[in-house]
Amino acid sequence: MEIEIATIGGYEEVGRQMTAVRAGDDIVIFDMGLNLSKVLIHDNLQTESMHSLDLIDMGAIPDDRIMSELSGEVKAIVPTHGHLDHIGAIPKLAHRYDAPIVGAPFTIALVEDQIQDENKFTVNNDLVTMEAGETMSIGDHTELEFVNVTHSIIDAINPVLHTPEGAIVYGLDKRIDHTPVIGDPIDMDRFREIGRDGVLCYIEDCTNANKKGRTPSEAVAREQLQDVMHSLEDFDGGIVATTFSSHIARVSSIVEFARDIGREPVLLGRSMEQYSGTAERMGAISMPDVDMYGHRQSVDRAFERIMNEGKENFLPVVTGHQGEPRAMLTRMGRGETSYDLEQGDKVIFSARVIPEPTNVGQRYQSETLLGMQGARIYDDVHVSGHLSQEGHYEMLDALQPENVIPAHQDMKGFSGYVDLAASQGYKVGRDLHVTTNGNVIQLVE
Amino acid sequence: MEIEIATIGGYEEVGRQMTAVRAGDDIVIFDMGLNLSKVLIHDNLQTESMHSLDLIDMGAIPDDRIMSELSGEVKAIVPTHGHLDHIGAIPKLAHRYDAPIVGAPFTIALVEDQIQDENKFTVNNDLVTMEAGETMSIGDHTELEFVNVTHSIIDAINPVLHTPEGAIVYGLDKRIDHTPVIGDPIDMDRFREIGRDGVLCYIEDCTNANKKGRTPSEAVAREQLQDVMHSLEDFDGGIVATTFSSHIARVSSIVEFARDIGREPVLLGRSMEQYSGTAERMGAISMPDVDMYGHRQSVDRAFERIMNEGKENFLPVVTGHQGEPRAMLTRMGRGETSYDLEQGDKVIFSARVIPEPTNVGQRYQSETLLGMQGARIYDDVHVSGHLSQEGHYEMLDALQPENVIPAHQDMKGFSGYVDLAASQGYKVGRDLHVTTNGNVIQLVE
Amino acid sequence: MEIEIATIGGYEEVGRQMTAVRAGDDIVIFDMGLNLSKVLIHDNLQTESMHSLDLIDMGAIPDDRIMSELSGEVKAIVPTHGHLDHIGAIPKLAHRYDAPIVGAPFTIALVEDQIQDENKFTVNNDLVTMEAGETMSIGDHTELEFVNVTHSIIDAINPVLHTPEGAIVYGLDKRIDHTPVIGDPIDMDRFREIGRDGVLCYIEDCTNANKKGRTPSEAVAREQLQDVMHSLEDFDGGIVATTFSSHIARVSSIVEFARDIGREPVLLGRSMEQYSGTAERMGAISMPDVDMYGHRQSVDRAFERIMNEGKENFLPVVTGHQGEPRAMLTRMGRGETSYDLEQGDKVIFSARVIPEPTNVGQRYQSETLLGMQGARIYDDVHVSGHLSQEGHYEMLDALQPENVIPAHQDMKGFSGYVDLAASQGYKVGRDLHVTTNGNVIQLVE
Amino acid sequence: MEIEIATIGGYEEVGRQMTAVRAGDDIVIFDMGLNLSKVLIHDNLQTESMHSLDLIDMGAIPDDRIMSELSGEVKAIVPTHGHLDHIGAIPKLAHRYDAPIVGAPFTIALVEDQIQDENKFTVNNDLVTMEAGETMSIGDHTELEFVNVTHSIIDAINPVLHTPEGAIVYGLDKRIDHTPVIGDPIDMDRFREIGRDGVLCYIEDCTNANKKGRTPSEAVAREQLQDVMHSLEDFDGGIVATTFSSHIARVSSIVEFARDIGREPVLLGRSMEQYSGTAERMGAISMPDVDMYGHRQSVDRAFERIMNEGKENFLPVVTGHQGEPRAMLTRMGRGETSYDLEQGDKVIFSARVIPEPTNVGQRYQSETLLGMQGARIYDDVHVSGHLSQEGHYEMLDALQPENVIPAHQDMKGFSGYVDLAASQGYKVGRDLHVTTNGNVIQLVE
Repeated sequence: MEIEIATIGGYEEVGRQMTAVRAGDDIVIFDMGLNLSKVLIHDNLQTESMHSLDLIDMGAIPDDRIMSELSGEVKAIVPTHGHLDHIGAIPKLAHRYDAPIVGAPFTIALVEDQIQDENKFTVNNDLVTMEAGETMSIGDHTELEFVNVTHSIIDAINPVLHTPEGAIVYGLDKRIDHTPVIGDPIDMDRFREIGRDGVLCYIEDCTNANKKGRTPSEAVAREQLQDVMHSLEDFDGGIVATTFSSHIARVSSIVEFARDIGREPVLLGRSMEQYSGTAERMGAISMPDVDMYGHRQSVDRAFERIMNEGKENFLPVVTGHQGEPRAMLTRMGRGETSYDLEQGDKVIFSARVIPEPTNVGQRYQSETLLGMQGARIYDDVHVSGHLSQEGHYEMLDALQPENVIPAHQDMKGFSGYVDLAASQGYKVGRDLHVTTNGNVIQLVE
Repeated sequence: MEIEIATIGGYEEVGRQMTAVRAGDDIVIFDMGLNLSKVLIHDNLQTESMHSLDLIDMGAIPDDRIMSELSGEVKAIVPTHGHLDHIGAIPKLAHRYDAPIVGAPFTIALVEDQIQDENKFTVNNDLVTMEAGETMSIGDHTELEFVNVTHSIIDAINPVLHTPEGAIVYGLDKRIDHTPVIGDPIDMDRFREIGRDGVLCYIEDCTNANKKGRTPSEAVAREQLQDVMHSLEDFDGGIVATTFSSHIARVSSIVEFARDIGREPVLLGRSMEQYSGTAERMGAISMPDVDMYGHRQSVDRAFERIMNEGKENFLPVVTGHQGEPRAMLTRMGRGETSYDLEQGDKVIFSARVIPEPTNVGQRYQSETLLGMQGARIYDDVHVSGHLSQEGHYEMLDALQPENVIPAHQDMKGFSGYVDLAASQGYKVGRDLHVTTNGNVIQLVE
Repeated sequence: MEIEIATIGGYEEVGRQMTAVRAGDDIVIFDMGLNLSKVLIHDNLQTESMHSLDLIDMGAIPDDRIMSELSGEVKAIVPTHGHLDHIGAIPKLAHRYDAPIVGAPFTIALVEDQIQDENKFTVNNDLVTMEAGETMSIGDHTELEFVNVTHSIIDAINPVLHTPEGAIVYGLDKRIDHTPVIGDPIDMDRFREIGRDGVLCYIEDCTNANKKGRTPSEAVAREQLQDVMHSLEDFDGGIVATTFSSHIARVSSIVEFARDIGREPVLLGRSMEQYSGTAERMGAISMPDVDMYGHRQSVDRAFERIMNEGKENFLPVVTGHQGEPRAMLTRMGRGETSYDLEQGDKVIFSARVIPEPTNVGQRYQSETLLGMQGARIYDDVHVSGHLSQEGHYEMLDALQPENVIPAHQDMKGFSGYVDLAASQGYKVGRDLHVTTNGNVIQLVE
Repeated sequence: MEIEIATIGGYEEVGRQMTAVRAGDDIVIFDMGLNLSKVLIHDNLQTESMHSLDLIDMGAIPDDRIMSELSGEVKAIVPTHGHLDHIGAIPKLAHRYDAPIVGAPFTIALVEDQIQDENKFTVNNDLVTMEAGETMSIGDHTELEFVNVTHSIIDAINPVLHTPEGAIVYGLDKRIDHTPVIGDPIDMDRFREIGRDGVLCYIEDCTNANKKGRTPSEAVAREQLQDVMHSLEDFDGGIVATTFSSHIARVSSIVEFARDIGREPVLLGRSMEQYSGTAERMGAISMPDVDMYGHRQSVDRAFERIMNEGKENFLPVVTGHQGEPRAMLTRMGRGETSYDLEQGDKVIFSARVIPEPTNVGQRYQSETLLGMQGARIYDDVHVSGHLSQEGHYEMLDALQPENVIPAHQDMKGFSGYVDLAASQGYKVGRDLHVTTNGNVIQLVE
């Protein structure tokens, strides 16, 4: 059976992930992501109303025109988890394919939100929910399986396409976490089983491939957060926290420690409300009595209530961990909310600034504004959601793949992975495929 | 009563700490440290046989000739904890003063070792042990108290000199740790009491004064270490760990997790044996059945035994976390021991490289050599032992000192502290004393 | 005669310089500058209409309320050169003092522009022009002299106040340049003479005090620029250059090399027109037939003409070297001008990005936008206008001052200077005055 | 005609360059270099007596065993210039091939020195001198041409193999310099001609491929050097300079400016004597009356003479620009020579520290030792010898090659080149060959 891999997007950047695998006549698409930074560099773009071709030209969504080179039929579109760089292009591209969108429950819920916000295209693809550990037939000889993985969002899976030529394992995005705060540990046993049965190709998340060692478990971030928050138990001023809205486990830890130190957590900001609200409505987490507000007016009322009842009794969890100019925390720094920051108030960034000059600059501005009002910063109370080098070694050891394709980075980002794969016997030009967007790699002719 | 502070050493560097406080006719000296980097820059210096004046000229030990400007009598020499930059000059300088050396038990035990190794001078000062929480009279009106603090070595204290003019709090070295792995939490209650009674002067450990946020508890380092070591539970090759020999709590965690994953910990290297051995003999820790070897021959035999019985059953804890050319780990990298490093073996650095080019270069060489033999590196499984900015704020808040003197850094290192103290109302030239080595600051005339 | 120095502004930042020297009953003020970054952090502030107290609270202009502690009469306000951080607060503060503003011709011309733009205050101080090498009486026993120095703007001087107690040399801002492209070399002979006669105090520009070696001459920047521009002689696409508008020598070199390679230089942007136009009207430079346009409409027309006549025949010199969001170059990057950037067009930054995260981020965005249109970047074709360490040594050697005050930086920036002054025998707390804003240093009682 | 390229060494590092081109039955080898850092990481290796296989295992010299995969006969070994990373493996590998070594005169002279120092192997290959602009037949249908280029050593050329299928241009190492201080400018006209005739493949020097802009001409380094040295005209203490021994143009500028400021230049150190002596004996430069000493004893005598006659009259030019522990400058820092460094003496590094931690650490140690004796450092008076991105664009524009192979870096180093080649229409996996050591790329079947 012919096997081809089309590296459509996310092979020259972190963002706009999209990969297609053809096994005989059947094609499965993994991820359809958005590169948000290509949108934000322009002022005031409303992507909801934009045409896909314009977004492709901007480098914001994958250039899927290469799909015409694959002679087969798309049977499924499979987002691996709910981050925008994996699902954000679905509203723009999915309607071109007569295939269901298959994902884990939380992922599908977020895809639904994406589709609802879309103004330009009508997306009628079926939405199919599949849990980690389950499988689905793709054509006669090919089967799709979801293996449970651990990442900075709940319900992350790695899809595996079982073909007569061996398994294709699509490894985006994960870290190896044996003690996640929410959900099950990564299913390394299953990966090892798949490895024993034969893996034709492994596509790897190289985000941190230039970092030594092991990405710590979420349990470590939780311990850091506990240490910071418990150290503020006796403090009677304002405390504000910010983190990735989609990072449900982290938000959940913040909520818990807020209660430990006698404060009422309140989630504020559109995306903060969206992700945690969705997770709770689905039963993925339980946050009884935690108020969440997304709309500007209800956020404003919440801030007023906090000030009236005493900010020492609350812990607002807000958007703005990257210093985004229009996020809640930046607005607080500009004095645009009724939350009154005072000398000595604390702001906890349970996030790391993405090391790109625009972000660094915006975050610096946000911290400067907060500092001008007297706030003090607890930075980097965080661990990454992506594998570092030792995780890559573990995955190669478990899967023993015949071919390896580094992804989720650019060439510079791949370089650490190329070195480590080479140390394990892989060779560029033979079974280690260093590639860019828009290529088709033929694995079995 | 006249009060003067002589800033003798450690006000232009991290290293060779020494400060004298005169209260009326009584003088107390805090710390007598060694700046090891000023020794190591020269090849093969044997400091044990060197004269103090030569070491002063090299910048290796404090220039205590300024003591002649203080008109009083030295009543005590008080090392705050057992690190070399606080006790390493005692063998060279203490004999000039007719005064006892007063310290916590572990500190005094390490001072004894220092004195024994000295070849040039005979040090006959009395060695007096005092526990945290205890006090001692210094002259008629002045009292010395030890307040329990938390640092990267056990038995660290902050000495407080209670004078009729208020307390002098000597704040070197510490972090604010409420959950240390060994020993009691920092005694913030006592600091607050002292603060309420009136603090004339606070001398602060500015090592990390340019770092935002809070230095995490040792509990966080322990969680990181547990995450790394437990992730290697199924690994059947060699695992080696290195950390600060004097960091008893860290060594103790490594020993515990080694056992968790079914390996016998063995401490190897002269200083590794010295510190842990001393701590155990004193009863400060209990490490039953942990083998420790310091002498070259016994280390060699231990390595042979490890190789004979299978290195997968052991976890050597060795010296060399900074890549020191003659330390055990570097020798392992050079293939000079019988421990056979193989492809995929793991080396855990439970330490951070001290950010100075010589160290960075040596560490890089050590890692390169280890890597050439196939070893893989887990780096930076560590938290600092020094206060960051939020700790400084907490201390100022607790003590409310009339005067503040930044120490344990150079001018660049002081800069972050100057800014934060200024934000709390202190002013350079009035009550915030930015100084250098060799000055006398008159607080009460 | 009593001599006091009030360190009013610019001792905790680069920006809002202001220092007052009292010699007996006579006071001279050196510089009244603006810290522009404290204005720009806020959106859309119109400083022209703001009250000085609000600007003081923001940290934008010097807090001159400390002047009330000096018992004497202000006899002159002396801006050293025309950069905003030295003259930008004159419109807000000068009217409080009944004293003339005394400066070199180009500086006074720029002060006039500042005063004209002011909406809130009426500034009626006399404007007095004095050339380098000239002197002026300040009271009976004191004389003001201007010594020619070299900086990144023409007509920079160092004012010297000759008092019966020795000279006060105010050393802001300069580099030691023996081959400036415009104007005379720095007058080191005169500094040495003044040194021989006795210098009571030297206030030094510490901008680059943490940099080793010697700041190169403008002749080096010119050689770099020539190398870049001549290498483009055969290129037939668009070339755009940007630099500091006030850096007349640099602009002049760009203009010359543009002609060398057969292109017509055109200066575009409000400040580009202002500085070069003023310099030419005063006869400081001769740029016959160089078109300069400042107003939006005339700039737009210039771009249209360039596109009509072929951009390969022109070399626009525009504002925007720091990526300022509203500057001309950034607008070109956004496609907001009629200049059509195409694949392969060149943009020469004859400037270095000021290493502060906001600037770095903005510059990155500007380069990203330019790059999205195909432009390619020549970066950092530049040398600094400020002394590095070897220049500081030379000045100390020439002046042999009794007292030294580091300025034009914060504590971290002073640190390199403190070390080097200490190596020359100065001592913190004695004759090396490490200070902050708002202090009065009494030199002679 | 079949055309194959074997990427033997220097495709995963800077060092041990070696590439073979097969055109039909004829093979030409370009470069046989040494990766010195792989030797120096070990203590006291004597490579002169080592076997090639051991050096291959260490990664020090190219693994040429892949040559057996090429079915043809080696007709020439062509070193492009005399740097060790291009000629240093000739003594170990050349004897295996029955082919002459063909190079420019200075290169061949240095190869001779290499061969003479070799103890293990006897190298009997013919040494053939060919000038830039000349050609030589390689088999019936293939011709070798040398095109003049500009680099940090004299007599650098780019070899071009003219085949019936088009030219193979081997582009290592160069910058585009139109005003070199010694020798002719780069022959861009010839490159453009070759481009018009058709280039099958271009192998590019990617050392600086991640750097924006244009590498400046040697004329810029000369201007910087002149600025520094002329600024010391009145200084009457010691001045020492260091640079790359093989950088004849730089040494020559230092010699000239030393005379300008009234000092006698003396070249000291083994390699300093070797390179400049060879260049002068060949007539490549004229340095009449410049003393050069390489042997330890004669160097010692030279230092004694300098001290006797007054060091203010001399300017020693010594080895040690990277802080190499055994180089002359480091020995001066350790006080191991009779040259007496004193407070205020100057050391000019006309070199940039190679940004690798071992070098950075050694250089730091060297500067620290020099500083402890009072010396002051002029750093980085230098420009690189390698193309930056704008040079790469120019070369692609001139040659218009069908295929491009990035070389002289690792994958991370290639990344900038991949991006820029992609922007010019090349594509990874098609005509942009991202490769590693030990691959054969078939261009024509």
